[in-house]
Amino acid sequence: MTDRAALASCIDPRRGGWIRLLLLAVPATIVLRIAGAGPIWLFAGSALAIIPLAGLMGEATEQLAERLGPGIGGLLNATFGNAAELIIALFALFKGYDEVVKASLAGSILGNVLLVLGASLLAGGLKYSTQAFNRTAAGVGATMLVLASFGLLIPAIFHALPEVTAQDIGLEHELSIGVSLILIFTYVAHLVFSLVTHKNLFNPDNADAHEEEDHWSNKTATAVLIVATLLVALMSEILVGAVEHASHVLGMNSIFIGVVLVAIVGNAAEHSTAVLVALKNEMDLAVGIAMGSALQIALFVAPVLVFASYLRPEPMDLRFTSLEVLAVVVGVLIARMVAEDGESNWLEGLMLLAVYAILALAFFFLPERTASRTEQRSATEAHARLEPFLFGSHAPVGRSSIRLGYLPREG
Amino acid sequence: MTDRAALASCIDPRRGGWIRLLLLAVPATIVLRIAGAGPIWLFAGSALAIIPLAGLMGEATEQLAERLGPGIGGLLNATFGNAAELIIALFALFKGYDEVVKASLAGSILGNVLLVLGASLLAGGLKYSTQAFNRTAAGVGATMLVLASFGLLIPAIFHALPEVTAQDIGLEHELSIGVSLILIFTYVAHLVFSLVTHKNLFNPDNADAHEEEDHWSNKTATAVLIVATLLVALMSEILVGAVEHASHVLGMNSIFIGVVLVAIVGNAAEHSTAVLVALKNEMDLAVGIAMGSALQIALFVAPVLVFASYLRPEPMDLRFTSLEVLAVVVGVLIARMVAEDGESNWLEGLMLLAVYAILALAFFFLPERTASRTEQRSATEAHARLEPFLFGSHAPVGRSSIRLGYLPREG
Amino acid sequence: MTDRAALASCIDPRRGGWIRLLLLAVPATIVLRIAGAGPIWLFAGSALAIIPLAGLMGEATEQLAERLGPGIGGLLNATFGNAAELIIALFALFKGYDEVVKASLAGSILGNVLLVLGASLLAGGLKYSTQAFNRTAAGVGATMLVLASFGLLIPAIFHALPEVTAQDIGLEHELSIGVSLILIFTYVAHLVFSLVTHKNLFNPDNADAHEEEDHWSNKTATAVLIVATLLVALMSEILVGAVEHASHVLGMNSIFIGVVLVAIVGNAAEHSTAVLVALKNEMDLAVGIAMGSALQIALFVAPVLVFASYLRPEPMDLRFTSLEVLAVVVGVLIARMVAEDGESNWLEGLMLLAVYAILALAFFFLPERTASRTEQRSATEAHARLEPFLFGSHAPVGRSSIRLGYLPREG
Repeated sequence: MTDRAALASCIDPRRGGWIRLLLLAVPATIVLRIAGAGPIWLFAGSALAIIPLAGLMGEATEQLAERLGPGIGGLLNATFGNAAELIIALFALFKGYDEVVKASLAGSILGNVLLVLGASLLAGGLKYSTQAFNRTAAGVGATMLVLASFGLLIPAIFHALPEVTAQDIGLEHELSIGVSLILIFTYVAHLVFSLVTHKNLFNPDNADAHEEEDHWSNKTATAVLIVATLLVALMSEILVGAVEHASHVLGMNSIFIGVVLVAIVGNAAEHSTAVLVALKNEMDLAVGIAMGSALQIALFVAPVLVFASYLRPEPMDLRFTSLEVLAVVVGVLIARMVAEDGESNWLEGLMLLAVYAILALAFFFLPERTASRTEQRSATEAHARLEPFLFGSHAPVGRSSIRLGYLPREG
Repeated sequence: MTDRAALASCIDPRRGGWIRLLLLAVPATIVLRIAGAGPIWLFAGSALAIIPLAGLMGEATEQLAERLGPGIGGLLNATFGNAAELIIALFALFKGYDEVVKASLAGSILGNVLLVLGASLLAGGLKYSTQAFNRTAAGVGATMLVLASFGLLIPAIFHALPEVTAQDIGLEHELSIGVSLILIFTYVAHLVFSLVTHKNLFNPDNADAHEEEDHWSNKTATAVLIVATLLVALMSEILVGAVEHASHVLGMNSIFIGVVLVAIVGNAAEHSTAVLVALKNEMDLAVGIAMGSALQIALFVAPVLVFASYLRPEPMDLRFTSLEVLAVVVGVLIARMVAEDGESNWLEGLMLLAVYAILALAFFFLPERTASRTEQRSATEAHARLEPFLFGSHAPVGRSSIRLGYLPREG
Repeated sequence: MTDRAALASCIDPRRGGWIRLLLLAVPATIVLRIAGAGPIWLFAGSALAIIPLAGLMGEATEQLAERLGPGIGGLLNATFGNAAELIIALFALFKGYDEVVKASLAGSILGNVLLVLGASLLAGGLKYSTQAFNRTAAGVGATMLVLASFGLLIPAIFHALPEVTAQDIGLEHELSIGVSLILIFTYVAHLVFSLVTHKNLFNPDNADAHEEEDHWSNKTATAVLIVATLLVALMSEILVGAVEHASHVLGMNSIFIGVVLVAIVGNAAEHSTAVLVALKNEMDLAVGIAMGSALQIALFVAPVLVFASYLRPEPMDLRFTSLEVLAVVVGVLIARMVAEDGESNWLEGLMLLAVYAILALAFFFLPERTASRTEQRSATEAHARLEPFLFGSHAPVGRSSIRLGYLPREG
């Protein structure tokens, strides 16, 4: 994202200071792992460690991107912009925690458009009575985000249709692949738009960029990027390995962990940057960070995960749970409403945070389904095989996911 | 609401004249009650009587609020702004008519954003070709209304999730309480916003206020407020007592009565004021009345009712029926669309009324569920206890409310 | 639609040239029919033939409308604007293909707001960096379209409510009639708005109209209109007759055929005109064509079809399938988002096309339900008669259509 290109210029050295203290969590987590500490400690340690590592990855990417020029640099930014989220999700994907993967995708979109945007508007609004931003740029970005999110959610909605039965799992995977191809194609189109045909829309003035002195050489930046990426991978492996146990110990369901905790960890860098620039009254940038990051999740990270899942024995689909579907729809619609009027105040920020809190409460109270997805599917398939004999072939079979009113049963 | 503060200035003495003729319905209803008249007569009489009483309560509140200054006065206005609705709902709540309470909440939001706003735009639009209003103020209010409504509806949507089973009633009540706390917190924040930090946004000029002569002394206003409140309480008690019988006699279901009839009665004062100011081309005020009243229902009246229900043996939740959820979502989204462009014409007003008519038709044709909510719950719980033995623990149990495709059954 | 009034002025003779070559499909299809060709050939031939015939009908209507003046002419335009769609749908209606009728209604709205609008924005955006249009006019039209679509979908949503059981088919038909009456009433109001009270809003300048020379006499235009209408009727009869067989041979379900193929054929004239005017940077007109045509389908064509169905033994209702409901809601909301900011670029056009592609994919993969609607209803009714004895009268009965999680079964 070119939003990122402007980010580096806004990083306050003092912020880097205290956030980087969290780097101490990296060796601490490794020690805890070796010492065989409980999953709560590993979960907390790796989560804390990822926050500054993701920030370092972002910073190193910025530095390299700036030297490589807008073309290749923009591409680098766009690809590595949400690399921490992608790495965490890949580990969860190959451990078979598809629910956590999808929860963290939905949570990442939600976290950006409600939590990051809300905190920015609130923080900025407490300092300035009303803050203005370019409504055209924000509107275009927000509309694209709505389009991307709706596209992303279509497979989940398809799954819930009464016409779709358990025998149609093949169709659902074909649809997921088709949708992923369309999303990644629009992502490429979006890159062409922001890096080639309409790059001036996203870099109205580069005044900010000049303020900053490049404090890393190319070699340092490359080294930081490689080391941070490796450490993020290591921490993600520990984090994902601890999610299930941590959820049992904490009495939280894994969807909540994915939607709220993992998403907050993965987006902490965007979060602190957006709040900082909002405090400087650079609302275009704050809104752009939140929208751009959410857009990248929907158009790039999600399809890449679907494609990557074909390296597993069984691929992952894009069937989000009903609460995830609902939360993302509400989140992106509300973010667009707030963004499009080109003005913000502290109450709007607070209301976004209130909606986030209400959704997080709902995810928190959501009962954990004890049966695994695979077991459910088997049960449903057995059920589906019986169905035609009992009720004729027109009977859709209730299943989990967003099928409301699902009621499997057997004679 | 500070909207109210401007209302008093707009009350036409001639309007007060004929509306106040309806005060004759107060003694008439008392006589009918003593004479043991049928529920239809009691329902009609008390409904007619509440209309001018609610108007008097509003006027007395205005008068007192004006003298008490913007701080305390604004608080008074905000608390008593929808006092008639609140009193009616409290009587219904303590008679155990939870469905009617929730229907009148949903109907109050709908009535304000579709009926009151639609009638104002239509009436104003027949006199003026295009009417303009401040799109920023209207947009902020409308966005807040959308946020508030979505928050209010989350418990109903949670209830419909496939993961939520009959055993989770405790969770649902915890969620309702959590959501109510968040809503009332944002209500307080909204008061701070409109009375302290951004009060100028809502009182662009107080020119209107000076036109009006104060015709009541503090003592008169206090007396009027107390007497009108007591009479509203008496009439509400009669109204609520007659709802069930009236619905049987009229062949209407109680949801329709709550959503349409009770809501119209409770909002009649806002209705006539909004139309009058629209005819004077003061569209900011007309839009503000409709939006502000709806916002107050969602952020203040609804949570207060949830808290009040904890004085009963069994608390009330915020589980609206699916049609209520849908209608409120459609209503607030459409109201925002109409409000945000900052311009209105008669066709927009007519279209809002058409949507209201279509939704009212749907509520009218909605079949009455004969079993009471409590009976349903018991049946479902019995069912839920059997479920795990029959189908495994992953089977969510179908229930009423917005669970689509619900299909309870037993072996 | 007065949009149409401006269309004629924009028809490029060269376009007429190659499109009219498709008129050769008219005799070819008749020959194929007589020769007893397979349904695929008849389907393809009649589809190709309707494209230029619909264009000719539109052109002849324009010519006549212009001479008859804005009043009667506007009425003529409004009535015949979507005449080709109406004729096709009437043939399908009286053959009992209610699913195809409703699919083509939904597809027509979708096709206009996603495909026609998307292609226009993309084509225009490839030539001009940013294209501007009147946000007020586009916003009013888009808001009306949202209102109209939501009204149109209420019967489908009503059908999916848990309170609505199989016994309530009568209620559903009454609701469909009531909604149709309200829609057609708002259509008349819309005509008054656009032809009488606010006609200047839609004809900002008639400069375009003067560019064009009238090349047909009144007599020629009338003759063209009559002959083209008759030929459209003949081709529609062949098209509809071939739909079912074609869908089997092509391995596509009839909903997909209706939503995508039939809708594209019926809207081909609007499509090419909108793209052409977008290439001329006349975005007001391009947006107006797409919105206006969709609005006419929702407010005029759909109710007329419901009324017409009362000439059959069994009337048609407005119960769209869940995917149709969802697609229309997504389509009109997104079209409004794109329209309201008053600016467009190629990426917005591409995103609209991407959403259309994703929805078309979902319709394509939708499994065909083998049981006919009537058989389903009978099964459900039998079920419903048993239900009260088994589970008490509070048990809503699962059925098809947008009932999510439907699961009929019997002991």
